[in-house]
Amino acid sequence: MRASLREDILKAGLKVMFKFGYVGATVRDICDAAGAPTGSFTNHFGSKEVFAKEVLDRYFQTLQGRVSEALNDSSLSPRQRLERYFERMSAVLATDKWGRGCLIGDFSIETASQSKLLRERLEAIFREWRQPFVACIREAQELGEIDATFTADDLAEFLLSSWEGAILRMKVERSPAALDRFREIAFETLARRA
Amino acid sequence: MRASLREDILKAGLKVMFKFGYVGATVRDICDAAGAPTGSFTNHFGSKEVFAKEVLDRYFQTLQGRVSEALNDSSLSPRQRLERYFERMSAVLATDKWGRGCLIGDFSIETASQSKLLRERLEAIFREWRQPFVACIREAQELGEIDATFTADDLAEFLLSSWEGAILRMKVERSPAALDRFREIAFETLARRA
Repeated sequence: MRASLREDILKAGLKVMFKFGYVGATVRDICDAAGAPTGSFTNHFGSKEVFAKEVLDRYFQTLQGRVSEALNDSSLSPRQRLERYFERMSAVLATDKWGRGCLIGDFSIETASQSKLLRERLEAIFREWRQPFVACIREAQELGEIDATFTADDLAEFLLSSWEGAILRMKVERSPAALDRFREIAFETLARRA
Repeated sequence: MRASLREDILKAGLKVMFKFGYVGATVRDICDAAGAPTGSFTNHFGSKEVFAKEVLDRYFQTLQGRVSEALNDSSLSPRQRLERYFERMSAVLATDKWGRGCLIGDFSIETASQSKLLRERLEAIFREWRQPFVACIREAQELGEIDATFTADDLAEFLLSSWEGAILRMKVERSPAALDRFREIAFETLARRA
């Protein structure tokens, strides 16, 4: 068995699950896309559920890289860093030609009632994802760049869940309009009383 | 064949698709839940795709009833009517014990890349759903109850897509916190400059 086969199956899994969803993606689809025998899927991962958790973890790891890249850019003010993150992600999503979206959002809808393992992992992911946003919003609030009526925790949650809603809308419209609208309205309103 | 069988299958279809999703719900699951032979499903609906469109249409019809009920209540100001809608829907969603959510949001994620028929119907549904919100927001803007920096169309879209994002979050957390946060932050920020 090739040493890279596990890796190939994981890469194929992300593509196939983006396309057909967690429920729709069969082990056969994934193995066909990876050019791997189905036996090696079972050897490496055991079940589709455990495999999907690893695909999700890797997706989130990549996303966290993008979060760090934008939110740690000290050449920008904290508010600019937040705006930069959503600008960049909008550009990434536009490149996908509306076929994809966000695996975290997809799995939130599709797996929350299907798999305790995945739902609990998603819950933890939302908590981890939020943290750098909370820190950045708090910094922006201290500088008066973002209104301080609401806590940084609540604003970070609101931003990220509204963002998932905009991506959901994008998938139906096949246009970036909802992402643009999110960026414009969310940032304008958050700054109102600053 | 019982005259009410078609109706029974449609009712069962909503429950089964909420539970297993569009892809996960099989014709057999739906017929078992309705106590109907699978042959009658085929006779009445032809395909799962056409059936799902009818389930979605009926769900949206019920939702439109709730929209009218809240947004046409002339005892309230336009802004209060908007708040009332999201308050009532939060109560409805809480009753579902987090197992359900919004079929429009579920289908947006799950069917947009699977079915042209459903994606196009969802696109039309979002347009229709928005209209009474646009009218109500415009009225609130004229009365100075909602800030007029953004158009009523853009604000209605932003509210409804952020709401879908909050429901998505609720499904993972199994708590109404995201819905409460949406109501509090969205309405507070929309009013800022009024």
